[in-house]
Amino acid sequence: MIPTFFVAALSLLPVPAKVAPDEGRLVIDQNFSVGVTGVGDPRITDAVARLIPCLAKKTGIPIGVVKAANPTLLIHCLHAGAPVQQLGEDESYQLELTETQAQLTAPNPLGILHGIETFVQLIEASPGGFSASVVKIDDRPRFPWRGLHLDVSRHWMPIEVVLRNLDGMAAVKLNVFHWHLSDDQGFRIESKVYPKLQELGSDGHYYTQDQVRKVIAYARDRGIRVMPEFDVPAHATAWLVGYPELAAAPGPYEIGRHWGIFAPAMDPSKEAVYTFLDNFIGEMAKLFPDEYFHIGGDEVNGTQWNASTSIQAFKKQHHLADNHALQAYFNQRLQAIVKKHGKHMVGWDEVLDPGLPKDIVIQSWRGPHSLAEASRMGYDSLLSAPYYLDHMKTAAQMYLADPLEGESSGLTPEQQQRVLGGEVATWSEYLTPENIDSRIWPRTAAIAERFWSPQDQKDVASLYERSAILSRELEDLGLLHKSNYRMMLERIAGPTALEPLKTLASVVSPVNLGGRARARQYTQQTPLNRLCDAALPESATARRFQKSVEDMLAGQSGRDSIRLQLMLWRENEAALRPEFDGNNLMHELAPVSANVSALAGAGLAALDALDAHQRPADAWIGEQHALLANARKPQAELIIQIVPAIQKLVDAAAAL
Amino acid sequence: MIPTFFVAALSLLPVPAKVAPDEGRLVIDQNFSVGVTGVGDPRITDAVARLIPCLAKKTGIPIGVVKAANPTLLIHCLHAGAPVQQLGEDESYQLELTETQAQLTAPNPLGILHGIETFVQLIEASPGGFSASVVKIDDRPRFPWRGLHLDVSRHWMPIEVVLRNLDGMAAVKLNVFHWHLSDDQGFRIESKVYPKLQELGSDGHYYTQDQVRKVIAYARDRGIRVMPEFDVPAHATAWLVGYPELAAAPGPYEIGRHWGIFAPAMDPSKEAVYTFLDNFIGEMAKLFPDEYFHIGGDEVNGTQWNASTSIQAFKKQHHLADNHALQAYFNQRLQAIVKKHGKHMVGWDEVLDPGLPKDIVIQSWRGPHSLAEASRMGYDSLLSAPYYLDHMKTAAQMYLADPLEGESSGLTPEQQQRVLGGEVATWSEYLTPENIDSRIWPRTAAIAERFWSPQDQKDVASLYERSAILSRELEDLGLLHKSNYRMMLERIAGPTALEPLKTLASVVSPVNLGGRARARQYTQQTPLNRLCDAALPESATARRFQKSVEDMLAGQSGRDSIRLQLMLWRENEAALRPEFDGNNLMHELAPVSANVSALAGAGLAALDALDAHQRPADAWIGEQHALLANARKPQAELIIQIVPAIQKLVDAAAAL
Repeated sequence: MIPTFFVAALSLLPVPAKVAPDEGRLVIDQNFSVGVTGVGDPRITDAVARLIPCLAKKTGIPIGVVKAANPTLLIHCLHAGAPVQQLGEDESYQLELTETQAQLTAPNPLGILHGIETFVQLIEASPGGFSASVVKIDDRPRFPWRGLHLDVSRHWMPIEVVLRNLDGMAAVKLNVFHWHLSDDQGFRIESKVYPKLQELGSDGHYYTQDQVRKVIAYARDRGIRVMPEFDVPAHATAWLVGYPELAAAPGPYEIGRHWGIFAPAMDPSKEAVYTFLDNFIGEMAKLFPDEYFHIGGDEVNGTQWNASTSIQAFKKQHHLADNHALQAYFNQRLQAIVKKHGKHMVGWDEVLDPGLPKDIVIQSWRGPHSLAEASRMGYDSLLSAPYYLDHMKTAAQMYLADPLEGESSGLTPEQQQRVLGGEVATWSEYLTPENIDSRIWPRTAAIAERFWSPQDQKDVASLYERSAILSRELEDLGLLHKSNYRMMLERIAGPTALEPLKTLASVVSPVNLGGRARARQYTQQTPLNRLCDAALPESATARRFQKSVEDMLAGQSGRDSIRLQLMLWRENEAALRPEFDGNNLMHELAPVSANVSALAGAGLAALDALDAHQRPADAWIGEQHALLANARKPQAELIIQIVPAIQKLVDAAAAL
Repeated sequence: MIPTFFVAALSLLPVPAKVAPDEGRLVIDQNFSVGVTGVGDPRITDAVARLIPCLAKKTGIPIGVVKAANPTLLIHCLHAGAPVQQLGEDESYQLELTETQAQLTAPNPLGILHGIETFVQLIEASPGGFSASVVKIDDRPRFPWRGLHLDVSRHWMPIEVVLRNLDGMAAVKLNVFHWHLSDDQGFRIESKVYPKLQELGSDGHYYTQDQVRKVIAYARDRGIRVMPEFDVPAHATAWLVGYPELAAAPGPYEIGRHWGIFAPAMDPSKEAVYTFLDNFIGEMAKLFPDEYFHIGGDEVNGTQWNASTSIQAFKKQHHLADNHALQAYFNQRLQAIVKKHGKHMVGWDEVLDPGLPKDIVIQSWRGPHSLAEASRMGYDSLLSAPYYLDHMKTAAQMYLADPLEGESSGLTPEQQQRVLGGEVATWSEYLTPENIDSRIWPRTAAIAERFWSPQDQKDVASLYERSAILSRELEDLGLLHKSNYRMMLERIAGPTALEPLKTLASVVSPVNLGGRARARQYTQQTPLNRLCDAALPESATARRFQKSVEDMLAGQSGRDSIRLQLMLWRENEAALRPEFDGNNLMHELAPVSANVSALAGAGLAALDALDAHQRPADAWIGEQHALLANARKPQAELIIQIVPAIQKLVDAAAAL
């Protein structure tokens, strides 16, 4: 059992399996040096080369490469790693700090990489300068598959976006990058065998094979496997622009420009489709060294299959009762192709069918039920359902969704063993290179801890504290979740409204995927430059305010600061109001700002009532309930996050 | 005469020579397109290629390359430019916007580059989306030489620092990058002829010749000449580490680690020195295509020359009365070498000597007097004295220093013509790649306007408004003056003190060069990670507060917001106090914070007295004067910038 107060003080994220801090500090100064012994590996050399500038940036001390007989950090790797990083390779490490030296030991280079990340996190400002606590850490992951899935089809993400997010993944010990490379809205990789895939299916926005090799090498250098996904037979419109003959209905086809479930699907009754996929997968299997290969398989709506007389005839001929059976047939053929090219097939949970061999992996997305079902049926499985970032859930909500609890808690130990881990799912309907980082980070760190740390690690307050520290360090690595948020607010605000817009933005969050789709008809070309695109998925201000209100109502102090905060919110409207008419990005925010101001006014009146110990009039209470109900409705695709706290204040006044 | 209210509304910086705005807007949306006609030039093609993503970033609209018969921006260049950009090449342009099209015409590609920057600055948020005002602009620079000097010796600046600052220069139409490549503390360029220069003189921190070519090409692409400086015969210790035989005293020599005027100097009496310089300058003259070549020439203290019997004998033999005459001899020899390699020599104002031919340029740094003197003596001249960024003057102070006013106002028109312009001087004693941008930007924009815009452009309030807008756009170009400021504050603050530290930082500025040197013994390795390294040279908060106080004392409103501001400053101390002991970077700020809090208290008491129309007691007034005197003293190498405003409040109360 980890003493939580120490863990919070150390600010490690994810929390290691075992931590034993002690008194004393190891000072980090200009004389910092690293020594490497044991089995050599270029990944270790590269990680050390990154560590030096990383520490210089973290501390502001001009740390350079210093040779020392007795280095500050002594790294010792016991064995070589696999030539291609394997699922289940030993990722453990031991890190022991004294007042004079840090010793990092691991059986495999992967553990050294993780241990270096932990070492960096240990360093903090202290009275004697930058230093790290004396500590003994014995760490290993809970799950072997800890992934981040990234959709680069619906909105194109240049390679820089991928690379900086790989750095973020490494910082929180995620180890699988699941690269969703094709969908209706874009085919994002160069095929030399079928070049019309990218030439006609990508608007020129695709990764060359050289870039793909660069990403794979960059990921390997950081202990991360790269699994490609090519989604078939549906979500495949972009393939059909160049190769309409693959489809179950005649073309021509155009790149999808909006979102949803589209009719176009590959024709499982055509041999030519399998020949095409064999050639294509053969090409990609050589490019991607990882032994897992994702074929999508989700959301086949059957429209084209049902309308095709030849497919109907094929189903009859092969005794395929329905479209599920037809897709299972397709998947069996596909699995044989994937296997022939040396890979295990992975698919979204629709592919689950007892007809498939047991060496495939099921990725649960429609709910945790399919994870348990797949495991019971003997399949390896991955959980993604609770980790869809576009659902705009809080870090705490996702953090507390454990792969082995709820639906999975009834699994036998053997079945639980088949739960390999999970993946955070990033879908890009409402993402651009500007705002993607703020959707992924820091919330993904919470899920990374769920995948890595002991199951009983559930202290949400500690998570948020550590996450705030990590969030800043991620920016040092090159992530832009904080700086692009500011940049987007500055763009929306124009030259004069930045401060009040910041105040408004700090208490709102965007609606989720469904809310966006209901609000307006989006296409791939719709500018994503509004406050709902910039605002953070989670309002730290609202969370802290909620806590203050709850503490105050439970009898603690803090009434003055709550009042001051409410006054600032109430007054903010006056600063913003002159800005709404001059700027179309500000215009839609007028009702949001008016509601925040009114809510703050309601909160202040409730505070006055509480101060005076006098219940407000029924009419006033009724008015506040109407205001709260109105303020709960999304406006400008934003949700005001302080509503629950104001509700508590009004309810407390009404209960006098 | 430019109508100032329009100029401010247009927010152009530097203000063009002639601006005639009219009613109507040109909308910028996804259909934005560019057409190029007239004489082609790769600089124009590249500028257009940069413009598209620049507008996408500015607006958040997915603008791509669109072909259109009638493009939004039509560019027409009349003539080809010089193969190597020349001093005095025509930089003028005409830019005319209607509600349907922008037309940019120039006689030379340089004008097109400047006009594109103006076009970008015209675009702003408006009720109908992003758009630009209908306007007619006829623009040309006032001075042909508008430079930024950068010392990369005392602290090493990697090539990224140089490149992003070239982008900043282009944005404000500066056209000379003066690259100070050698000094006592480092020799920063690869010489293939004398490789020990960089091998022994740079700690491995130097630009390869390929990198230099990249910088030159990048600068040319942005309308910027690159002039190298190799400072001789003094400030040359780093040369002597590899080639001690050049020195006037026997070696060995080590790279300088602290600052100041050092004894080592080259020996003007040795023929081998001229042979060396001939070979070296020959190599560099080929690498740098610009026709100007800076040889430094400043701060020869004569210690080694005076101590050398052979030099004494040489002086006697050549009838050189003193060290100035000896340096003039050296410079004559040097000038012949520089000229032989096809260049004009440029030197700091110590080189001024009637013995030198008139085709050299004198750069005035010790004061504007030498500028006038050089011009009167028939030399071309450059003004840098008022534009030393490390003097920590405000943008307004530097803005109002005009090259042709003060000492130069008595020059004849012909002599004035010899004032080519000026250069902003950046010296890196207290600069790192982290904080350099915040020293250069946005203050340099003010000086750029001085060099470009009409002499009567002196509206400081307008300058600050436009500068704030430009400052944000510079970050979009990749400059880090705002984001690194935040990053450094976050590092100093640690996880819990960021907001109160921001408040403290917003009212302080670092002391100047002299103040730093008096405060402690710095070396090249001293960490520059303290608040005095992060704090901005100019406090916008203090400037605005000063204005509010002056307005209020003159009878205008604003007393409530002044009171609120003072309360926040007074209370900030309570939030910071718990942080001082846990963190060595915070520790030194305790007295600064205490003083700010006390000043705010004094201001509040003065306000109370003003409200009550009652003069405070003499004893209180005396106490406040003592407090103000104490708060004026630098602490932690910081100056509290709200002292003058508090002084005004106290004086007003005392005058009741």
